[in-house]
Amino acid sequence: MSRVRVHNLAVSLDGFATGEGQSLEDPFGHAGQRLMQWFLATNSFQSMHGAGSGRTGIDDAIASQWAPGIGAEIMGRNKFGPQRGPWQDHEWKGWWGDEPPFHTPVFVLTHHPRPSLEMAGGTTFHFIDAAPEEALRQAREAANGLDVRIGGGPRTVRQFLAADLVDHLHVVVVPIVLGRGERLWDGLEGLEERFEIESTTTPSGVTHLVFSR
Amino acid sequence: MSRVRVHNLAVSLDGFATGEGQSLEDPFGHAGQRLMQWFLATNSFQSMHGAGSGRTGIDDAIASQWAPGIGAEIMGRNKFGPQRGPWQDHEWKGWWGDEPPFHTPVFVLTHHPRPSLEMAGGTTFHFIDAAPEEALRQAREAANGLDVRIGGGPRTVRQFLAADLVDHLHVVVVPIVLGRGERLWDGLEGLEERFEIESTTTPSGVTHLVFSR
Repeated sequence: MSRVRVHNLAVSLDGFATGEGQSLEDPFGHAGQRLMQWFLATNSFQSMHGAGSGRTGIDDAIASQWAPGIGAEIMGRNKFGPQRGPWQDHEWKGWWGDEPPFHTPVFVLTHHPRPSLEMAGGTTFHFIDAAPEEALRQAREAANGLDVRIGGGPRTVRQFLAADLVDHLHVVVVPIVLGRGERLWDGLEGLEERFEIESTTTPSGVTHLVFSR
Repeated sequence: MSRVRVHNLAVSLDGFATGEGQSLEDPFGHAGQRLMQWFLATNSFQSMHGAGSGRTGIDDAIASQWAPGIGAEIMGRNKFGPQRGPWQDHEWKGWWGDEPPFHTPVFVLTHHPRPSLEMAGGTTFHFIDAAPEEALRQAREAANGLDVRIGGGPRTVRQFLAADLVDHLHVVVVPIVLGRGERLWDGLEGLEERFEIESTTTPSGVTHLVFSR
């Protein structure tokens, strides 16, 4: 059975996985780059975006687990772009550029479906209005036996965790206090009982937690 | 200048430093012993309560920093006991037994002052109705040049952090999701900017964070 995986999801000490006030310029709102600083430096991130080689090391080794074995991604609409409500601009094709780093089908959860977008490099965005179970059914079918990644944001990951659909959860605790934004852990009391948990702090100062089962 | 220190303050992934429903039997409410499991096993904890020797190791080494150099403690009333409102029972002398492990003056913050309690072993509880600055002034005087520990609970620590009175903060992130209780980080957005931060995960699975300046 293919697994459902979450990778590289950064969260502040107070449990926020994104800040307040998302916009085109600030995908993480007032958090800016603070949650993802550890990741931006890695080779995994740099090569995702076609840049020169980034740092290899422990953060990179853990971050690199993001891609192998994944056949499809499910993401919330706010990971595709900052728009809310009905789509105003069908020409804008998301934050991810002409050749998005996913290279698989990507199911974007939205109450406002629109035609699929086939991008260069194997990524196709499908826009679906579906509950977690149904979205996962579609993603599994598209993944062709490979694993499905829940790509975020926090609300989407939380929904899949609440529905007990996640088998592997990689969370990165960043030692900052964001104060406001979107909380990851709400409604997930006792989550730890469903998983084996490993944790390690890396020299960048973040703590990687892996929940698996 | 003597420093103001916080030690061994455990917090869940969702930022709760104690659970809901504190009672005489459950000082941490529904959290039970889950936040302090890493600590109960240590030699530092065991010898605090006169028991046989506990485990030595990294958790113990870090936990043992609690005592040296401390001349007084400030604690919230709920660390003394679970009562709310006017004191009903002056005979009950708190959770800490006949010989509390503090061995210094301890200032208990309460809106209901009562006579001081001199206990065996050098601990005297003083009950004061004071804002953080004034409580610290009194504790510093009593500490005679040594450091002052803010002993908890979370609301008390949060007040001293908000007033920017803390120089050393040791927090232990325990990989559990409590869901409810008393939050440590509320109102402390950007706290990390005031400190140098070190972090390390230990084999027990918790992550120790030290904020210092």
